[in-house]
This record gives sequence, structure tokens and C-alpha cells, in this order.
Amino acid sequence: MTKNVTGLRPGGRSARIQEAVHCAVLALQQELEQSQITVPMIAMRAGVTPSTIYRRWGDIQQLFSDVAFSKLQPDSLPRDLGSFREDLYAWVEQYYEEYSSSVGRALLKDVLAAQDTQTAERCYDLVSQQLDVIRERAIQRNENFIENRLIIEIVVAPLIYMILFSSQQLDLDFVHKLLIRLFEDQ
Amino acid sequence: MTKNVTGLRPGGRSARIQEAVHCAVLALQQELEQSQITVPMIAMRAGVTPSTIYRRWGDIQQLFSDVAFSKLQPDSLPRDLGSFREDLYAWVEQYYEEYSSSVGRALLKDVLAAQDTQTAERCYDLVSQQLDVIRERAIQRNENFIENRLIIEIVVAPLIYMILFSSQQLDLDFVHKLLIRLFEDQ
Repeated sequence: MTKNVTGLRPGGRSARIQEAVHCAVLALQQELEQSQITVPMIAMRAGVTPSTIYRRWGDIQQLFSDVAFSKLQPDSLPRDLGSFREDLYAWVEQYYEEYSSSVGRALLKDVLAAQDTQTAERCYDLVSQQLDVIRERAIQRNENFIENRLIIEIVVAPLIYMILFSSQQLDLDFVHKLLIRLFEDQ
Repeated sequence: MTKNVTGLRPGGRSARIQEAVHCAVLALQQELEQSQITVPMIAMRAGVTPSTIYRRWGDIQQLFSDVAFSKLQPDSLPRDLGSFREDLYAWVEQYYEEYSSSVGRALLKDVLAAQDTQTAERCYDLVSQQLDVIRERAIQRNENFIENRLIIEIVVAPLIYMILFSSQQLDLDFVHKLLIRLFEDQ
């Protein structure tokens, strides 16, 4: 008995379509410049009709944005190193490494290229959720902690801004300078 | 005698093409969703061939990015209000108003959508040039000033990050909070 009373498995077909379309985009991105990829190409590769893609994603930028977001989702919780400061330093260093690579930068730009603002907001939520984990651990340990909003304004925002807008090569010294500013602000 | 010895007016034809293509894009953006606009449509409206557009801009995202950058260029110097602090406050408030509007946000996203990184870097340079003017005035007045890099990290970056990634409605209180943090950091 894999069917429920409605005869439908909620999410089953929908999830399979999403996976097939995402895989098709990823495969085409290996072979072509992104600007050369079209919805009919993706549909053919994924074994769906173009209208399925338009109905679900609206346009190709939205689809690229969705695929990029999936790749940006962290596959693990922030590491627990025993203190708020160490947990935050380790998380920020890893975040910097992921986003400052040419792959990370391209994913960020894809996320932002969607017409709607939801995918970019989901990136903000991802960061907040990771910082929530670090804060909750600090509370469990009876430690002082710093509000998410301040961490985002003082550390995450300048990192992402410099990655997106500056030609300067960033390094860990820059990341540490931001973290020192954050802790001095307290 | 409008021709020089080579028989060419440097920039003449090139500048006319750029203007015609930019105008065609702006007109089409009034009429259509951006995702519906194609290079052949722009070419027809501008009276050039599609290959002229591909040769000059590479692809349509690059062209949208170039048009967006032109719209973001300030048409005046920062106002001179008599002190570094007042000049900077006024400049940041105006910058916030321009970029936090739905038009400003869309232009920022267009600038970032180009495959290359040059247009985004030109946005960084624009900000630096405006801040240079404010700093030079402070030096003329024998005032203390704050380095561009700090202003960008502590004020400009969080503003742009929140505009791009957050669903929260921003206001001038937020802008002033960033400016207070900048001056307290000194």
C-alpha cells in the first residue's frame, strides 16, 4: 500500500519533476554558457514539456535562481567548538570560503537574478537559521552572545558586498578584521 | 572640418549606437516584462542589426547591466553642507533613497546579472568617487575624515545587503544607526 486514499502521493510527482529539471540545468551548465541555455533545452533533457517549466518557475532566471539556492543550502549544522566566539569564527570562515569562490559568486548572482525577491530572502533566512543554532548553543552554555542582526550587518553584509561589487582579492585577514569589529562593538 | 586626419570621428558612430540601443531597451522595459525582451526586438527598435548588439555587449544580460549602470550614475556631486559629517549624512540618505526604491533595487539586480564582474565593480568605483569628493572637501577644511573603505564596510554594504536580501522594510532610522556606528568606530 504506497497510495493514500486520494490515490495521490503528495509531493511525489512534483518532487521528481523538480529533481529532473534541476539535474538537467546542472548538466547543461557544465556544457554551455548560461546565456546559451534555453527552456526547451532544459525540458528536453529533463523529459518534461516546456510549459511544465514555465508553469512552475515562471521564467528561466527564476529556475536558475532556484537551482543556485539549492546548491547554497548548507548540508550541515555549524560546528560546535565549545564557545560562541569559536563557533562564530569557524562558521564565518567557512561561509567566506564558500561564497568568495568563483562558484559561490556565480551562485549568489544567479539567486539575485530572479524577478521575485523570495529566493534572495531565503538566503537571508539560511544565514539566520545557522546563526540561531550558534546562539542557542551559547544560551545553553550560559554564555553571552551577539544578536543575528548585528552579525549580519557588521560581518556578513560587508563580505557579500565586497564579493559582489569589488575587484579586490579578499582574504582571511579581511574576515578577521570584520569579526574583531563585531566583538569590539559589544 | 569635423573629421580628423583618419577620417573617423572617434566615438561618434559608436556613441550613437550606444544611445539608440539604450533608448530601445528603456522603451521596451516600459512595455514588457524584462524576461520577454529579446535581442532581435531591441535591434529592430534601435535600427541596428542583432549582431551589432552581440558584438558589443556579448549577451542581453550584459546589455541590461550596462543600461542599469547608466541609470545609476549620479548626475551631481555630493552636496557641500559645510562639514564632513553633514556631507556624509546627506549623501548616505540620498543613496539610501535611490537604492531602496523598487526601481533602485531592480537596477542593482540588473547590474549584478551580467556574466562579467566589471559593471558591478564600476558601481563600487562610483561610490568611491563620490566619497572622494566628500573627503577632499574635509581635507580642504582641515577636518578629520573617515576612510572610504570604512564607510563602505560599515554603512554602504549593510544598506545594499539588506536591500538585496532582506524582506524587511528599511527606514531612515536604520540608515542613521549605521552612520552612528561608523562615527563611534573612530
